[in-house]
Amino acid sequence: MPMREACGLLGVFSSQFDGSIAKTIYYGLFALQHRGQESAGIAVSDQNSIRYHKGLGLVSEVFKEEDLERLGGRIAIGHVRYSTTGSNSLSNAQPLVVKYHSGELAIAHNGNLVNAYELRNELEQNGAMFHTTTDSEVIAALIARSHKSLTEAIFECTERIQGAYSLLLMSKDKLIAVRDPNGFRPLCIGSYNGSYVVASENVAFDTIGATFIRDVEPGEIVIFEESGLSSIKRRSSRRSLCVFEFVYFARPDSMIDQVSVYQTRWKAGAILAQEHPVDADLVVAVPDSGNVAAIGFSDFSHIPMGMGLIKNRYIGRTFIQPSQRIRNLGVRLKLNPLRELINAKRIVLVDDSIVRGTTMGQIVKMLKDCGAKEVHVRISSPPITHSCYFGIDTSTRKELIASDNNIESIREFIGADSLGYLSVEGLVRATGMRKEDLCLACFIGDYPVETPREGKKYLFEKR
Amino acid sequence: MPMREACGLLGVFSSQFDGSIAKTIYYGLFALQHRGQESAGIAVSDQNSIRYHKGLGLVSEVFKEEDLERLGGRIAIGHVRYSTTGSNSLSNAQPLVVKYHSGELAIAHNGNLVNAYELRNELEQNGAMFHTTTDSEVIAALIARSHKSLTEAIFECTERIQGAYSLLLMSKDKLIAVRDPNGFRPLCIGSYNGSYVVASENVAFDTIGATFIRDVEPGEIVIFEESGLSSIKRRSSRRSLCVFEFVYFARPDSMIDQVSVYQTRWKAGAILAQEHPVDADLVVAVPDSGNVAAIGFSDFSHIPMGMGLIKNRYIGRTFIQPSQRIRNLGVRLKLNPLRELINAKRIVLVDDSIVRGTTMGQIVKMLKDCGAKEVHVRISSPPITHSCYFGIDTSTRKELIASDNNIESIREFIGADSLGYLSVEGLVRATGMRKEDLCLACFIGDYPVETPREGKKYLFEKR
Amino acid sequence: MPMREACGLLGVFSSQFDGSIAKTIYYGLFALQHRGQESAGIAVSDQNSIRYHKGLGLVSEVFKEEDLERLGGRIAIGHVRYSTTGSNSLSNAQPLVVKYHSGELAIAHNGNLVNAYELRNELEQNGAMFHTTTDSEVIAALIARSHKSLTEAIFECTERIQGAYSLLLMSKDKLIAVRDPNGFRPLCIGSYNGSYVVASENVAFDTIGATFIRDVEPGEIVIFEESGLSSIKRRSSRRSLCVFEFVYFARPDSMIDQVSVYQTRWKAGAILAQEHPVDADLVVAVPDSGNVAAIGFSDFSHIPMGMGLIKNRYIGRTFIQPSQRIRNLGVRLKLNPLRELINAKRIVLVDDSIVRGTTMGQIVKMLKDCGAKEVHVRISSPPITHSCYFGIDTSTRKELIASDNNIESIREFIGADSLGYLSVEGLVRATGMRKEDLCLACFIGDYPVETPREGKKYLFEKR
Amino acid sequence: MPMREACGLLGVFSSQFDGSIAKTIYYGLFALQHRGQESAGIAVSDQNSIRYHKGLGLVSEVFKEEDLERLGGRIAIGHVRYSTTGSNSLSNAQPLVVKYHSGELAIAHNGNLVNAYELRNELEQNGAMFHTTTDSEVIAALIARSHKSLTEAIFECTERIQGAYSLLLMSKDKLIAVRDPNGFRPLCIGSYNGSYVVASENVAFDTIGATFIRDVEPGEIVIFEESGLSSIKRRSSRRSLCVFEFVYFARPDSMIDQVSVYQTRWKAGAILAQEHPVDADLVVAVPDSGNVAAIGFSDFSHIPMGMGLIKNRYIGRTFIQPSQRIRNLGVRLKLNPLRELINAKRIVLVDDSIVRGTTMGQIVKMLKDCGAKEVHVRISSPPITHSCYFGIDTSTRKELIASDNNIESIREFIGADSLGYLSVEGLVRATGMRKEDLCLACFIGDYPVETPREGKKYLFEKR
Repeated sequence: MPMREACGLLGVFSSQFDGSIAKTIYYGLFALQHRGQESAGIAVSDQNSIRYHKGLGLVSEVFKEEDLERLGGRIAIGHVRYSTTGSNSLSNAQPLVVKYHSGELAIAHNGNLVNAYELRNELEQNGAMFHTTTDSEVIAALIARSHKSLTEAIFECTERIQGAYSLLLMSKDKLIAVRDPNGFRPLCIGSYNGSYVVASENVAFDTIGATFIRDVEPGEIVIFEESGLSSIKRRSSRRSLCVFEFVYFARPDSMIDQVSVYQTRWKAGAILAQEHPVDADLVVAVPDSGNVAAIGFSDFSHIPMGMGLIKNRYIGRTFIQPSQRIRNLGVRLKLNPLRELINAKRIVLVDDSIVRGTTMGQIVKMLKDCGAKEVHVRISSPPITHSCYFGIDTSTRKELIASDNNIESIREFIGADSLGYLSVEGLVRATGMRKEDLCLACFIGDYPVETPREGKKYLFEKR
Repeated sequence: MPMREACGLLGVFSSQFDGSIAKTIYYGLFALQHRGQESAGIAVSDQNSIRYHKGLGLVSEVFKEEDLERLGGRIAIGHVRYSTTGSNSLSNAQPLVVKYHSGELAIAHNGNLVNAYELRNELEQNGAMFHTTTDSEVIAALIARSHKSLTEAIFECTERIQGAYSLLLMSKDKLIAVRDPNGFRPLCIGSYNGSYVVASENVAFDTIGATFIRDVEPGEIVIFEESGLSSIKRRSSRRSLCVFEFVYFARPDSMIDQVSVYQTRWKAGAILAQEHPVDADLVVAVPDSGNVAAIGFSDFSHIPMGMGLIKNRYIGRTFIQPSQRIRNLGVRLKLNPLRELINAKRIVLVDDSIVRGTTMGQIVKMLKDCGAKEVHVRISSPPITHSCYFGIDTSTRKELIASDNNIESIREFIGADSLGYLSVEGLVRATGMRKEDLCLACFIGDYPVETPREGKKYLFEKR
Repeated sequence: MPMREACGLLGVFSSQFDGSIAKTIYYGLFALQHRGQESAGIAVSDQNSIRYHKGLGLVSEVFKEEDLERLGGRIAIGHVRYSTTGSNSLSNAQPLVVKYHSGELAIAHNGNLVNAYELRNELEQNGAMFHTTTDSEVIAALIARSHKSLTEAIFECTERIQGAYSLLLMSKDKLIAVRDPNGFRPLCIGSYNGSYVVASENVAFDTIGATFIRDVEPGEIVIFEESGLSSIKRRSSRRSLCVFEFVYFARPDSMIDQVSVYQTRWKAGAILAQEHPVDADLVVAVPDSGNVAAIGFSDFSHIPMGMGLIKNRYIGRTFIQPSQRIRNLGVRLKLNPLRELINAKRIVLVDDSIVRGTTMGQIVKMLKDCGAKEVHVRISSPPITHSCYFGIDTSTRKELIASDNNIESIREFIGADSLGYLSVEGLVRATGMRKEDLCLACFIGDYPVETPREGKKYLFEKR
Repeated sequence: MPMREACGLLGVFSSQFDGSIAKTIYYGLFALQHRGQESAGIAVSDQNSIRYHKGLGLVSEVFKEEDLERLGGRIAIGHVRYSTTGSNSLSNAQPLVVKYHSGELAIAHNGNLVNAYELRNELEQNGAMFHTTTDSEVIAALIARSHKSLTEAIFECTERIQGAYSLLLMSKDKLIAVRDPNGFRPLCIGSYNGSYVVASENVAFDTIGATFIRDVEPGEIVIFEESGLSSIKRRSSRRSLCVFEFVYFARPDSMIDQVSVYQTRWKAGAILAQEHPVDADLVVAVPDSGNVAAIGFSDFSHIPMGMGLIKNRYIGRTFIQPSQRIRNLGVRLKLNPLRELINAKRIVLVDDSIVRGTTMGQIVKMLKDCGAKEVHVRISSPPITHSCYFGIDTSTRKELIASDNNIESIREFIGADSLGYLSVEGLVRATGMRKEDLCLACFIGDYPVETPREGKKYLFEKR
């Protein structure tokens, strides 16, 4: 089921002055567009100053050829955004570019700080003013207060900020990549033609012809400069990679911390088939979120797969709201059932997760209306029972159907004949990682870092 | 493989004056967007006059809410276009709206006339002037010359025009649907709340909550007016539905002339597996054109399927051309291989067709670069050896790799370990139709109607 | 007082292929922008085909640099439009470009045909269809019907059409300028670097560095082609140049049929002072329409001039409609009185004409509110008592305040202390032309050609 | 001659919640558009939070109806900008809205600080970061550092900043107007329906139906809040109103510090005629900058006026750069001479000032090319010999033709037959103010406050 996540990051430190550096970022951002579709931006340093272009919309909507041509240089960072904190206004688009005592600084951020509110309060009491409602600006303000070198200032800053952050920072002559000590969000390093690239997911490397070198480690600060790459490692902390990167966010062709997203999803589907077997005629995926798990389910259960739901790929951001009669048609604008495939069949419907349950209910009804004899819903992750404070917009606990309903109530709500969720252990097993290295908070409520009281995370915008 | 086809049509004759009729067309056009992405338009009659809005781009780009609100009325037709004749200029966008002795007339057309050039010449000699380079305007001009009733004028017109045409015509008080005597292009009738709907594919009905009634028959003229529906049937002719509607154009969830597109593609894949079996580890579809056939191939061969190629869905019309370095990366901006799934495997790569062979060659190379041990290409339709004159932009014969290369040469050109095309008989069998009821001209060169000399079809624009 | 007029025309026949021909038209159209601000267009022939770009808005809004660069060629025509017949839709923007038996033809038209409705009816009965609601398309249709040479076809066409028309026509290798036998609208010929230019007003020549050669004569057809300039003169007719070109439409720095617009306006003001003397302290012009006449009035009367009304030049097309409170402020958004200049003075307020009287009433009130002791309105043309059928949008007779009110009633309506209009003889004297060579129909009701019944001229759009 | 000045300000404190407050600002900004045409913005407080909309371009281009409708509230400030410091990027558009310890603050600024560079340096050393290159952000940062009440913080801030500043500040419940102790830039207070208005020029009051109350005094801080208006007066300082407001910037229908701009310009022209009499036939103004002075000159000298130069009012911001041939035509795109008025005459050409002399030289040549026997240039202000540091973009001294040329050399450079500038005393006399109350620095080099070294003022952007 669609959930909203933070952002995609991409940085390049080129081996030479490169007139096409902005184009390289542009094509790489296409490969990260699934991580954020509300705004996009590119900032480039030509060693003297930082110029940038950003706007609301998809990468293809924000940039015109002349925008890219204006942005020649040697270092560049790009960003696609789905707002977590900060409303979706242009002033919140990233990269954020500020001027301070040591010159210009550009920041691109993926994740969510849990103590941004307290830090901002403290900074304001000390005279800081803010232009945006992003927690990224808090990071910038902390760095601007320090009189140490940029690297040391960033190190100090990471001692103060808590929560999830994968960061790219750019001064006129440095590119710096930072990953929080828990490694909540992915970040990896690649190279092409002697140039370095850093990206949220390695699929961006494929697109621009770069090869993967290694992941940025949790708690690591990697500095790219003329003299080469260097690294500072912060005190170690409990690693807790967000498991939802595997479940939903990342592209299936990505590797995160050396684990294949595709294989994880396939295995999740296969284990799901093992944990919740069902006698049925056809496995149908909710496209695209359930696609890979459905293959796994089908492969393990030997129930054939069919494309029983066809997704309309032309429904975009600028879609006009339907009038009443059409709205009643529910999800049919986006998802159309293939009647003659569904009719008279016992269907296994596979998706990655259920958030509020309303869409799933509409889909089940749609399949039944097409003549499905039975609809067995299988979810390739455990029930989401707790809010996320690290960058996923699962809203408040109250809205999560699984926070105060048991499986049977949910099944009844969505109208399915049976409902099976993957177990936490099954999901962990699918990743092949150790349970203690994953953040499973939304399933089990065990938060790797202390979190604010419920609701506090939205205060930034409403104050 | 992507080919360009003509257009998608949608018409509504509402049982009452309907302020939201343009919105109904708007949502229906989304379901037909796959048939044409270069321009979109809606014309509405409020019984007194016809107003319209059209523009270049996707449906979501062309219409703003105020455009739709301006267009209240009782009859409406909409159109999405991929240019066949006529360059992609705004003046060629449809519906075409003209004024003539009997008032206003709006026309939307899917297909391609083979004698448009001769007819236009003749009309010009008789004093006609043209504003567009579409053959649809030729149809309008023929009707404008007649002094009979609109229905009779349309009937007379169909006696003159030859080739493929599914048409919607709208006067201030009538909606008229026409399908050529061969029935090259689909057209079907539905209804909701006492209103009639006509569409290129019935998927549009699902989206707007209408139910399918029947197909417009080849050679039939169906008139929708206040007093109800009536029909005129032209002299019968050889039925020859374009088989490529099943192979590539139509949405898998459509039924065309009562045949399921999905089932046809699935069977094509299954028969392909039967005709060209291969010992391999994984079936991979070229997304999205090969998706359904790949399932059929996998189901029949029991070779498991995997999403070995991930498609980037954000590469749109406004995409900026890559610089040289990126362009060398070939198809990777749009299609990324899933390395760990491909590596060390024997792959069956399934697609619907090969036109020029260049893209397929790049994909095969990409898979081999990812470590594929073998790549066996399987095509769910026969080799395309002849140009189409009925609305598909397969360009000149020279560009078709199969027009002067045998299978072995093509295999070598694309670098595959083996290559198998579905047989003509296999394809026919997959549709479940009689061979003589299908247009198979692009595979066998047997054109159902006389065609112009090669190249003549482009004359319109170049004169 | 602002009235709406037809259009501005500009054509170039270049001595050589000229990559910047569209730019030349573009700059020239700026000088003609006062003649039409609703749409603009340029069509260029590169000897093979005609390409064009047109749009709604000002010249500076319609064209981007790349639009002009696309339009290289040897012949070009441009047009700025204020709609007379035909609503302001994009399809009515000019030049109109059509295809017919002899190739392509572009037409730009200034003026209004009085028998367009009858001609169009007749053409439609003979099978013609129309895309626009302009009478220019009627002209195109008449030409397309002829099988004679283009020049002869145009000659024949001018035998049929009646009313006001200055025309530019362009085929792939000819530029043809036509002026109606009455010479209602201006048209003149110039040259630069061996290239010919034709324009509605010679100010366009100044802007592009061309020099004036001569006016196109009433009833003349001038052909520009590779071999040079030639001319055909139609049977003579009564010359009747629209006197409102001098009174309001033309730019003051233009010469029309060898008469200076500025001098005519200045003399009109001076004669007005002579005809309607008044004892006052200050002459104030309604800017910009009354500017030159006010100077003449001041110079003759020796009453000093003052800029008592300041015009806001930033109120453009896209201006948002005022809310109620602001709307009550009347004309003050556009025109602000200079209180300390007005206060306690006896004012002579000079304008070129009064149409409905409402705006003039608001201005008089505004001056009185600023403390003017007396406001004496002086109009540099006679009362408008009759509708125009030749291109000026004075609407129906009913709306003309002078059609059924005597001077005293008008004075009372506008709240002036006295009101004086220039006499018809005074106006004729100001031009220095013979009375019989001017169209004075709107003042005296004597139409130089037979006119349709009142209201008929709007039928085109409403049918 | 066109010079660039800072900005126009407009603020409203409404007596009640007002859904149309943004529209009121919108119409008022039209009346101030002459003060800045590069960006426009409106910020509105609804008592809880501040929302804003700003953009590059004219007021009519930046705002759409829905933008204004979104901005309901009780307090609002608007701004039109011509960049002085800070390049013309969107991030520099005003009002500037920041968040700090006491909530949100919006700032609009007209003028130029002379110590902004030093202050910003100091603030950065103390940890401040900046998003823009405007000195307005320095003001915001100073206020954000203070922990006193907003009014006190502003008072403290004015103790630190030096130079020219008329400011509007808005918190959620206060509107505060500030004028620097020298009163360089105008600022005045008006009211309507119990609401307060503050504007750069009182012409904005006319447009929105407000009446003038009084000027904000130099060094005064005026606070508008629920409880009414209050005022704090800073230590007195030498008053030094920028005389160029009278000479060029302000609209002629404005009163500044109770002096009429129109009367000042008229008198300047009359005194100029007295100081530099000449035997000539016609007074011609360079429109629009020389218009009023030319009337004064004509009235005093009894030489008649004529509109010898016609200005094209359609050449706007988006004008495409001319190609070479057209560029050679010099100023003729914007200014066209009226040949038959000029020919064989001795012309007095009146303008308000000469900056670099190139445009004036082109105009003189243009008049001579039209047959002018003599051209006598008369300038209604003294020679500009020194740079301005208080908001006028006269660039560096080197570019000012009068900085190192005597009158005779300038006359020769511009090709005039004679050249006369108004004396400093004459200009002072025209204003009716005391010489010591005016800033005449650009004419005499006596700066009212200490200025940075030449060139320093541009450092902001280039650092």
